[in-house]
Amino acid sequence: MPPPLILASASPSRRQLLANAGLDFSVEPSGVDEDEVKLSLLGERAKATEIATTLAGMKAMRVSARRGGAMVIGADSTLACDGRLFDKPPTLAAARQQLADLGGRTHELHSAVVVAQNGARLWHAADCGRLTMRPFTDSFLDAYVARAGEAVCSSVGAYQLEGLGAHLFSRIEGDYFTILGLPLLPLLAFLAEHGIGLEQPT
Amino acid sequence: MPPPLILASASPSRRQLLANAGLDFSVEPSGVDEDEVKLSLLGERAKATEIATTLAGMKAMRVSARRGGAMVIGADSTLACDGRLFDKPPTLAAARQQLADLGGRTHELHSAVVVAQNGARLWHAADCGRLTMRPFTDSFLDAYVARAGEAVCSSVGAYQLEGLGAHLFSRIEGDYFTILGLPLLPLLAFLAEHGIGLEQPT
Repeated sequence: MPPPLILASASPSRRQLLANAGLDFSVEPSGVDEDEVKLSLLGERAKATEIATTLAGMKAMRVSARRGGAMVIGADSTLACDGRLFDKPPTLAAARQQLADLGGRTHELHSAVVVAQNGARLWHAADCGRLTMRPFTDSFLDAYVARAGEAVCSSVGAYQLEGLGAHLFSRIEGDYFTILGLPLLPLLAFLAEHGIGLEQPT
Repeated sequence: MPPPLILASASPSRRQLLANAGLDFSVEPSGVDEDEVKLSLLGERAKATEIATTLAGMKAMRVSARRGGAMVIGADSTLACDGRLFDKPPTLAAARQQLADLGGRTHELHSAVVVAQNGARLWHAADCGRLTMRPFTDSFLDAYVARAGEAVCSSVGAYQLEGLGAHLFSRIEGDYFTILGLPLLPLLAFLAEHGIGLEQPT
């Protein structure tokens, strides 16, 4: 029997991606203080990919240390635009401002995934998408934030690409799963090599 | 008031894409005999993009001719691999064979969208994604087809990328919406220019 699979993330979109792929897993958020780690890494001038990979690893290893034997998936995403890193907006007003800052420009979304077992990192992958937002009018931003609601605060980009967020973009380059926060294709390949996948007895 | 919006397609994934984007629309399949048109175009050695655009236009114009004033969206997708065009598989066995043929290779998925009004074509866009499938074992194909079920017969690629289909791929290049069957970003931009979008009063 393959080991149990745990997603060390509270993100609804990551959970949905794994569920859509038909995997059998449980969810256990890591409790890692992401803000503190990010501030520390920013002080070291770490790049967007390194920050995402470090945080994904911390989440996976933290949960894996307390769930012996299980394969634990950690993931994280960071957004960089013209050298500036963006974070999950804490309020709707902050989300609106963030979208105003990103409008008319191209940003990079970096997603990393790490698999850990028995407190040690087994494998990782990172990938990046490039997204170009349309220029926005004030009335468009008002309408978008009003209709999207609190959901805009749950993602680093203040958008929900799988929903209303499609209205924000003129061009999207890169793997959709990566952009939703999880490099799913390399993760599925890694898991399949370890006997976790569609052929797994259920 | 903007005109009513109609999707001239029976495809559940296209309907879902438009619904996720928060648009207010109705669905009215066109009744165009796609197989007959495809055979005729294949006889003319038309390319995959031309076939998709022609069929998308026929669907949009057919419905728009009977729904005066409405903006009607038609869409179609074609799949080409090494010069061969693939079609929606009629049976599970055909779907399995199609996946066996595509395994380990890169194919192109061409999607086209046309908007018509009063029986005339107003606008169109076409886009293409490149998808590389992993090589498959017989036992993987058996497991995939058994778990995915009849859904594999509803798409030209015999996969549901938004679901179990993610297990089939090693690499996906191109816009996710295009790959799901609808170049959504240019469509939303066109509709917004015509007063149909998030700012529309509901």
